Order: sequence, then structure tokens, then C-alpha cells
Amino acid sequence: MDKTEKQLNEQIIYSGKIIKLHLATVELPNGNEAFREYVSHNGGAAILAIDSKENIYLVKQFRYPYREEILEIPAGKVEFGEDPKSTAIRELSEETGFIVHDLTEYGVIYPSPGYTNEKLYIYFTKVEERHNIHLDADEFLDVVKMPIEEAFDKICSGVIKDGKTVYAICRYMSERCRK
Amino acid sequence: MDKTEKQLNEQIIYSGKIIKLHLATVELPNGNEAFREYVSHNGGAAILAIDSKENIYLVKQFRYPYREEILEIPAGKVEFGEDPKSTAIRELSEETGFIVHDLTEYGVIYPSPGYTNEKLYIYFTKVEERHNIHLDADEFLDVVKMPIEEAFDKICSGVIKDGKTVYAICRYMSERCRK
Repeated sequence: MDKTEKQLNEQIIYSGKIIKLHLATVELPNGNEAFREYVSHNGGAAILAIDSKENIYLVKQFRYPYREEILEIPAGKVEFGEDPKSTAIRELSEETGFIVHDLTEYGVIYPSPGYTNEKLYIYFTKVEERHNIHLDADEFLDVVKMPIEEAFDKICSGVIKDGKTVYAICRYMSERCRK
Repeated sequence: MDKTEKQLNEQIIYSGKIIKLHLATVELPNGNEAFREYVSHNGGAAILAIDSKENIYLVKQFRYPYREEILEIPAGKVEFGEDPKSTAIRELSEETGFIVHDLTEYGVIYPSPGYTNEKLYIYFTKVEERHNIHLDADEFLDVVKMPIEEAFDKICSGVIKDGKTVYAICRYMSERCRK
């Protein structure tokens, strides 16, 4: 049975730097009306970089909505008209210094489908091991090198909790297991 | 070095049914000012239910922000003052009919830390296999039973893309591999 909600009316009540806020009235499959509020976003791209010793490279940054510093794989907003793959390559370079060309697609994830339409493009890439990671790269961001097994343990202990990051690490671990 | 962004001022410009929209001015570690826009949310809880034959139970529902039906593990919004574990148990029961008591914690995930403060509490539970799943439970939601290996293949082929769902499935696959 068709479960489509038909748009009856919709307006954007806030248009900001990275998000817009939409309010809509929809017709449900049973004919009733319902209210929907959601955020639109141009999309993001993120990349898991792993070296031959199975170290991964994370960034630690302060995230104002949570008022805390969290560990994430390098990521950024897809600019208007930009190919998400280019975003991932650019963000990896800007945040860690790695220059890469060959990416494996880890799919598109929908971070919280109840109230955002953001699409997050996830990639995986192999890099050469680096020893001279600037552990205090700039005032806003640290680069953290970590064996992927340790990263997985940090997911299990609740230290790593960013959605795209926990997915990418567990996806890698699952695929490695199957091979 | 401390990377904290200090709140200079902040206001809520929209207060809706499930989200609020906040605009803030913050002081960066270097003393400059920056603008932050983000959504606040009371949090969600989600649960991966797996039976002795390693089938998992997903729900398929229309998500208006994406204008498409997507597959997700059972989940819902944490009500004010509610324990997320109770939310997960309630949503699993409402959406699939399974009554469970013993949950394993899969941690808290931050779905998109750039612009939302939502915390998503993820659980795992074992259930008895069910054969009489209503494949068209109601007008708004279908329950889909699927071997977890097939679900993982559907992540790799891009069919399953909900963030909490891809994490929970890959987390299970990774842990199973380590045992």
C-alpha cells in the first residue's frame, strides 16, 4: 500500500548559513492531515582514512550544539554544485594533510530522517602512515591517529559517538571480517 | 589547548513539536566571534532486535523530509523525563509486537553534530523468531523481517541508509566477528 504523504502546503520559515527550517502540512495515506517540521541541508561528505598498519585518522573538535569536543572522521559540508567525492578529498586534505585520489564508496547515510533531509556521503580511502601528525593542528581542531581496533573499543565504551564515524569504523570492521 | 566556544548570546527562534531552532553568537578560542545555528531535540531511542536465526526486524516507513520510504530499526522520540531504555522497549512493542526486557547498550550516537544536539540511544536485544509478522501492520508502517547478512548486503548496495540502522547492524557484525 502506498504510504506517501502528499504535500498540501509548505513554507521555509528560516533560511540560514547551513540549514533551512521548513514547516509543512501533509495528507496522510488515510486522508487525515498532519504537520511536519524539518531542516534542509545541502549534504555532507566524510572519509575514513586508514594506513597500512590499520591506523585511522580522526579529528577532535568542539561541537557547539553538544558543548563538547568530539572525535569524528574528516568531514565537511558539500558546497552548492560540488561533487561529494570532491568534498571528501578536500576536507581530508584540509584537516589532515593527506592527498588522496582513490575512494571507495561507503554509501549515503540519512542521519536523522524524522526531521532532516541531509544526505551524508561516506567514503573510505587508504593512506600512507604518517608519523608527523600535528597533534595540535590549529586552534580549532586536533588530528588524532589511532589503531582501528582501539577506535572500535572506544565506540563500545562510548568515547566515540559521532554517527558517521561509528558507522564507517564498524562498516570497515564488518567487511574486513567477511574477507 | 582549550577549544571551547563560549556562548555570548543565544535565542530560540522557533519552538515546534519535535525540534527547536537556536541561533547563537559564540566567542572562538582565538577571541573572534562566530555565528551558530542548530536544532535542539529531546533525544531518540532505537533498538536492533535479532532472533536465534539471525533475522532482524525493521520497519519501513515514509519519511517526509526525504519524500521516500526507508528501512529503519524500530525507534522513537524520548518523551520528556522518560528513560531512553523505556522508549526503546515501548517503540519495539508498538511497531513490531515484541515484548522485551533485557537490552544491551550500543551507546549514544550524535547523528549530525554540526547542527543538532539530538542524542540517539541505541540498544540491542534478542527475540524469539516470529513467523506471523504483519507485513502490512498499519497504513503507515510495514514490518520487514530479514537475515542480518542480507541487511548488511543492503547497506553495501545502498538500500539501507538510515544512520542509526547502518550503525547498529555493522556494530553487531563487528562484535560477532571478534567473538
